Amino acid sequence: MRIHVVNPNTTASMTAGIAAAARRAAGPGVTILAGNPDEGPASIEGYFDEALCVPGLLKEIAAAERAGIDAHVIACFDDTGLDAARALAAAPVVGIGEAAYHVASLVAGRFSVVTTLARSIPALEHNLRRTGLAERCARVRAAEIPVLALEAPGSEAEARIAAEIGRAIADDRAEAIVLGCAGMADLAGRLSARFGVPVIEGVGAAVRLAEALIGLGLKTSKVGGWAPPLPKAWSGPFAPLADGAAK
Amino acid sequence: MRIHVVNPNTTASMTAGIAAAARRAAGPGVTILAGNPDEGPASIEGYFDEALCVPGLLKEIAAAERAGIDAHVIACFDDTGLDAARALAAAPVVGIGEAAYHVASLVAGRFSVVTTLARSIPALEHNLRRTGLAERCARVRAAEIPVLALEAPGSEAEARIAAEIGRAIADDRAEAIVLGCAGMADLAGRLSARFGVPVIEGVGAAVRLAEALIGLGLKTSKVGGWAPPLPKAWSGPFAPLADGAAK
Amino acid sequence: MRIHVVNPNTTASMTAGIAAAARRAAGPGVTILAGNPDEGPASIEGYFDEALCVPGLLKEIAAAERAGIDAHVIACFDDTGLDAARALAAAPVVGIGEAAYHVASLVAGRFSVVTTLARSIPALEHNLRRTGLAERCARVRAAEIPVLALEAPGSEAEARIAAEIGRAIADDRAEAIVLGCAGMADLAGRLSARFGVPVIEGVGAAVRLAEALIGLGLKTSKVGGWAPPLPKAWSGPFAPLADGAAK
Amino acid sequence: MRIHVVNPNTTASMTAGIAAAARRAAGPGVTILAGNPDEGPASIEGYFDEALCVPGLLKEIAAAERAGIDAHVIACFDDTGLDAARALAAAPVVGIGEAAYHVASLVAGRFSVVTTLARSIPALEHNLRRTGLAERCARVRAAEIPVLALEAPGSEAEARIAAEIGRAIADDRAEAIVLGCAGMADLAGRLSARFGVPVIEGVGAAVRLAEALIGLGLKTSKVGGWAPPLPKAWSGPFAPLADGAAK
Amino acid sequence: MRIHVVNPNTTASMTAGIAAAARRAAGPGVTILAGNPDEGPASIEGYFDEALCVPGLLKEIAAAERAGIDAHVIACFDDTGLDAARALAAAPVVGIGEAAYHVASLVAGRFSVVTTLARSIPALEHNLRRTGLAERCARVRAAEIPVLALEAPGSEAEARIAAEIGRAIADDRAEAIVLGCAGMADLAGRLSARFGVPVIEGVGAAVRLAEALIGLGLKTSKVGGWAPPLPKAWSGPFAPLADGAAK
Amino acid sequence: MRIHVVNPNTTASMTAGIAAAARRAAGPGVTILAGNPDEGPASIEGYFDEALCVPGLLKEIAAAERAGIDAHVIACFDDTGLDAARALAAAPVVGIGEAAYHVASLVAGRFSVVTTLARSIPALEHNLRRTGLAERCARVRAAEIPVLALEAPGSEAEARIAAEIGRAIADDRAEAIVLGCAGMADLAGRLSARFGVPVIEGVGAAVRLAEALIGLGLKTSKVGGWAPPLPKAWSGPFAPLADGAAK
Repeated sequence: MRIHVVNPNTTASMTAGIAAAARRAAGPGVTILAGNPDEGPASIEGYFDEALCVPGLLKEIAAAERAGIDAHVIACFDDTGLDAARALAAAPVVGIGEAAYHVASLVAGRFSVVTTLARSIPALEHNLRRTGLAERCARVRAAEIPVLALEAPGSEAEARIAAEIGRAIADDRAEAIVLGCAGMADLAGRLSARFGVPVIEGVGAAVRLAEALIGLGLKTSKVGGWAPPLPKAWSGPFAPLADGAAK
Repeated sequence: MRIHVVNPNTTASMTAGIAAAARRAAGPGVTILAGNPDEGPASIEGYFDEALCVPGLLKEIAAAERAGIDAHVIACFDDTGLDAARALAAAPVVGIGEAAYHVASLVAGRFSVVTTLARSIPALEHNLRRTGLAERCARVRAAEIPVLALEAPGSEAEARIAAEIGRAIADDRAEAIVLGCAGMADLAGRLSARFGVPVIEGVGAAVRLAEALIGLGLKTSKVGGWAPPLPKAWSGPFAPLADGAAK
Repeated sequence: MRIHVVNPNTTASMTAGIAAAARRAAGPGVTILAGNPDEGPASIEGYFDEALCVPGLLKEIAAAERAGIDAHVIACFDDTGLDAARALAAAPVVGIGEAAYHVASLVAGRFSVVTTLARSIPALEHNLRRTGLAERCARVRAAEIPVLALEAPGSEAEARIAAEIGRAIADDRAEAIVLGCAGMADLAGRLSARFGVPVIEGVGAAVRLAEALIGLGLKTSKVGGWAPPLPKAWSGPFAPLADGAAK
Repeated sequence: MRIHVVNPNTTASMTAGIAAAARRAAGPGVTILAGNPDEGPASIEGYFDEALCVPGLLKEIAAAERAGIDAHVIACFDDTGLDAARALAAAPVVGIGEAAYHVASLVAGRFSVVTTLARSIPALEHNLRRTGLAERCARVRAAEIPVLALEAPGSEAEARIAAEIGRAIADDRAEAIVLGCAGMADLAGRLSARFGVPVIEGVGAAVRLAEALIGLGLKTSKVGGWAPPLPKAWSGPFAPLADGAAK
Repeated sequence: MRIHVVNPNTTASMTAGIAAAARRAAGPGVTILAGNPDEGPASIEGYFDEALCVPGLLKEIAAAERAGIDAHVIACFDDTGLDAARALAAAPVVGIGEAAYHVASLVAGRFSVVTTLARSIPALEHNLRRTGLAERCARVRAAEIPVLALEAPGSEAEARIAAEIGRAIADDRAEAIVLGCAGMADLAGRLSARFGVPVIEGVGAAVRLAEALIGLGLKTSKVGGWAPPLPKAWSGPFAPLADGAAK
Repeated sequence: MRIHVVNPNTTASMTAGIAAAARRAAGPGVTILAGNPDEGPASIEGYFDEALCVPGLLKEIAAAERAGIDAHVIACFDDTGLDAARALAAAPVVGIGEAAYHVASLVAGRFSVVTTLARSIPALEHNLRRTGLAERCARVRAAEIPVLALEAPGSEAEARIAAEIGRAIADDRAEAIVLGCAGMADLAGRLSARFGVPVIEGVGAAVRLAEALIGLGLKTSKVGGWAPPLPKAWSGPFAPLADGAAK
């Protein structure tokens, strides 16, 4: 199985960390191909960044489709561009946000999310509602850490995340914790051991769910909202992408 | 008052129709400035088109902000790019989809939507749920007309839309009808007279709600999901847009 | 445009304040006709007062209809009598509660309401649910001020309201505030400046939404729950009102 | 136990039928005191009638309170005036609509309602949502029979109601039927026998639930929305009622 | 009327307490037959205990059916085995949890539940959602008292329950309290007097609702999920029970 | 990895079919251990059968735990006994119903379920609501086939299921189909090819999700509703099971 993991921001060091997390989580016989666009924002913190990383993300998806791939993982916790990617790709696509919510629902009746910045909470709440799993989520919390600070040695990121986890267990009646950023992937094991509840990070969850879909021979339904793009006139730089996608 | 109405697709004849509808609906003393991006899809029919019209749309929003404007209207019924535009703009932004739902809720307990293609139904249903007005909507129906066919003389578009309206009143217990495409704006009056129920089109609704916000001195809250973009490194063609937006 | 603003309680000084707020908010060319019943409670604080102000309110609506009017605004935040008024009137009717919720939803993802007394919270929560906008409301808070104390010079009303606004921003993640009483209309501007978030008061919001409906040529749907009263036998003082209304 | 059953319309023959149904359903040792206002509409068909029957209804409630009573039943399926009556009365108050929904939920996973006119459907749907039992209701159906036609010998009322019940069982997956008008009370037994599912009428259900509350020593909570009216200035005919009620 | 009250755990002293509470609450002419299985757990604290008390519970239900009974009450607040019992029994079946929620909804707009252990909260929340009354419930609280400690003289159970009630009124805006364990039945009167709000215990509520169903001649609908068991092959000790039940 | 698949009914031929489906779906290096209780019903069709298969099911779970296992799959589409099994087991437990809903949500915006008998629809609807994925499900349909008829050669089972799938795509706007019975597992591939939409069967979905949990090192949270059984007195045949489980 070949799984394409795309980090929609342009920070290569973060892509490397995501790729490592994906490989750690992947089952036997799975090849992880990780990449990121070369155009767009260095991190995704709010709706503006989200919207403008999508063209680069879709180009990566299209390139991986042409190269032959069994599934795509979008490694931004906001599940940025997921609908468009599903419309574009023949292979199934899994977002790390939705993956984490689905997996958490299998091991906990109720979970809380700990993400980076409060400005991302509304987007995550909308995704939870769309996925249908909002009722399983007690609360989305922000540790108030910029995304790229997660990579900084000596930052207090882990301490802040741990503090929110403590509050989630005490105040939200959370039975599990979802880490709400691709950059938090390598904290999951340590935090789970510390707090004694499942701590789910989305990169691994998405890779494993992508494997499940591949193994079951399932692809995105092309009836409904994820139908392939219709052929039509396009102007500007996205025309080739659109031409390749239309059916 | 100066209201910027942006058609996010590249079809200038459709922009002209939207501008005319906006001017018909506008109150005294309102100047409508209408435009469309010069890059992107000729029509918006599904998530892929939606995602890739957003960069062009945001450039139009940014240009209008610089030129001085009191409010923006996004004239695509999917409310494409609305969150990113609200994060970017200082002036308030109204989507024609949400505008139609809010206005319909003031004159009908329950309404149905008649849109173009079935592939757009899921996106509209998600927007209804986000707006909070999904409970007021009996059903989203598709007349199965391509967007640009709405402009074609001699098409059967109006007949098909009328047929769906008839079904909505008979089967959905709809008390009003929302027309689910910017290209349907000039049908509203005729169809309302024919069926004896309010028929709401979004362009006029959005212009009038934008006037209301301007009149009340209200702008988008910058606390939460619509906070301005954070300054950060950007690569590629969106960097200038991002630099102008970041605060 | 002629807009009828009816204060459903009998306190003429409050009606004068509401009329002033309506005129401040109204667009060019709008005439505000404000009034109140001469029978009923001096303020509306709970379900009992609400129910018994409705006959007087409906008489005012009927009189304004006969005098020729383009829209009605019901200036009690509980949206008292709104359904019956819509059934009675040919012109559109807007409640200040629903108006504030709709307008807040256009500038904030999430808002809190600050009303007068805790006994009114359940009625406001029901209205939010009926409108469909309950999901957009983080919390309804009470400042524990009697309605008529809002008019008393030197009262601590504004300080108490401000305290609740502070809590709403800090604890509810509110991005905007809705002031939950017609008597609070002139506080909105000052409180918005102080807290840096939109503060919406319903009288202005309703006047501007009424203008929007008039401008769009929209009236209440007469199919469904707001159909005109059926002709039937009536006893007692409401018989003339009913006879005038039945169709 | 003394239970006051108030028919909020002025049709004495309908009050007699309701009283008979109440007495048939009542347990041993229960005295039914039935009455109706002498001012108001002859039947309640929509929001306008609903609003204007409330003053007469509240006078009846107040009179019964003074006479000494253990509980009140409001015998209109729209649960007209229920909130105001609960604020006014010391004794518990049960509406026949909510009573029927609660009882149906104890014998069926899912029920449909068959009411008189389609114009009443929205009000019943709102009540179902307020009660919390909307999810248990598959559909509210209208047999399109005016309320007073239920009393007319030789009307086709029962046939039309039966036709809707047949559709509810076949199409709605209804496991029980709620009859949505006080005037349908004596049809329940016959229709239940005919269709082989529980058919619940609200007058009996409400009397039995009122007995349950009395037996358990429970009264309306006076904390929250049903707190007693506050003392204040009143003008006009309701002043004595308000004075008696305020605490 | 003969009402069978079954305590699904094996603690006879608790059954005696439940029987006493049932008799206190029952109306004139009602005979209470109380019992418990002789196989199963001594108390029900979580899903495992719940699942394994059901066979014994169903045997008790079947035996009471054969002996002739008018209704069954399941006296565990988790409403353990309620669906299976309804499928098995011809007589109506009422759970004490659902009974308490329905009754509380008639005297309070909003209630909180105080149960024994936090591990039971998820089950109660699921039941509230199934019943449809979750929206009426502000919060389910646990006093952290083991079930059988409720019987221990000198325990601090009542003090802990009272502390949670105080918090529910202050923090949840609860207008009434539901006691969430059959073993708390005799505290209701004292706590209601102390806190000045209705305090509902489920045993009495269920007995009175069972009387209501009997009085109205209503039985469980046999169309849908509560249809009688189908005849089929059974192995092991439940075969006779299944044979007796199948239709 | 060793995955225990338990068919909660006693029909060994059905267990064999389930085991075969599980092995077909399993990834490399996965050993499937399939079994069924020797006591209980031959098929599970409704709440009564569901309740009485649970003791046998839990004994199988406990035995597999003692034998050493990495995860359990409960192969009844009603997810019978799932909560009790999660409380009992240290290894994670996945129900085939929930597994199918989660997997369908990754490849379709909206799905319909086709199950065996209408009497099972309410239980599936409750599970959908508990899982949180009810909003993703358009409708639960019954093909009206007894469970064991699925195994009968020459039955019209597949034709009836196909007919419901056709209706689901045409009438429910279903983008994927979930087959609602463990006995339908081998129909999925053929029906998916025929209808051109993903058809998900739960046994394979659950095995693949169980692999995902094992691969991620995740186990059921023991904080909350799935905490281990408390030690207590037990009478009768379940005492040893309870003693082994309590912690």
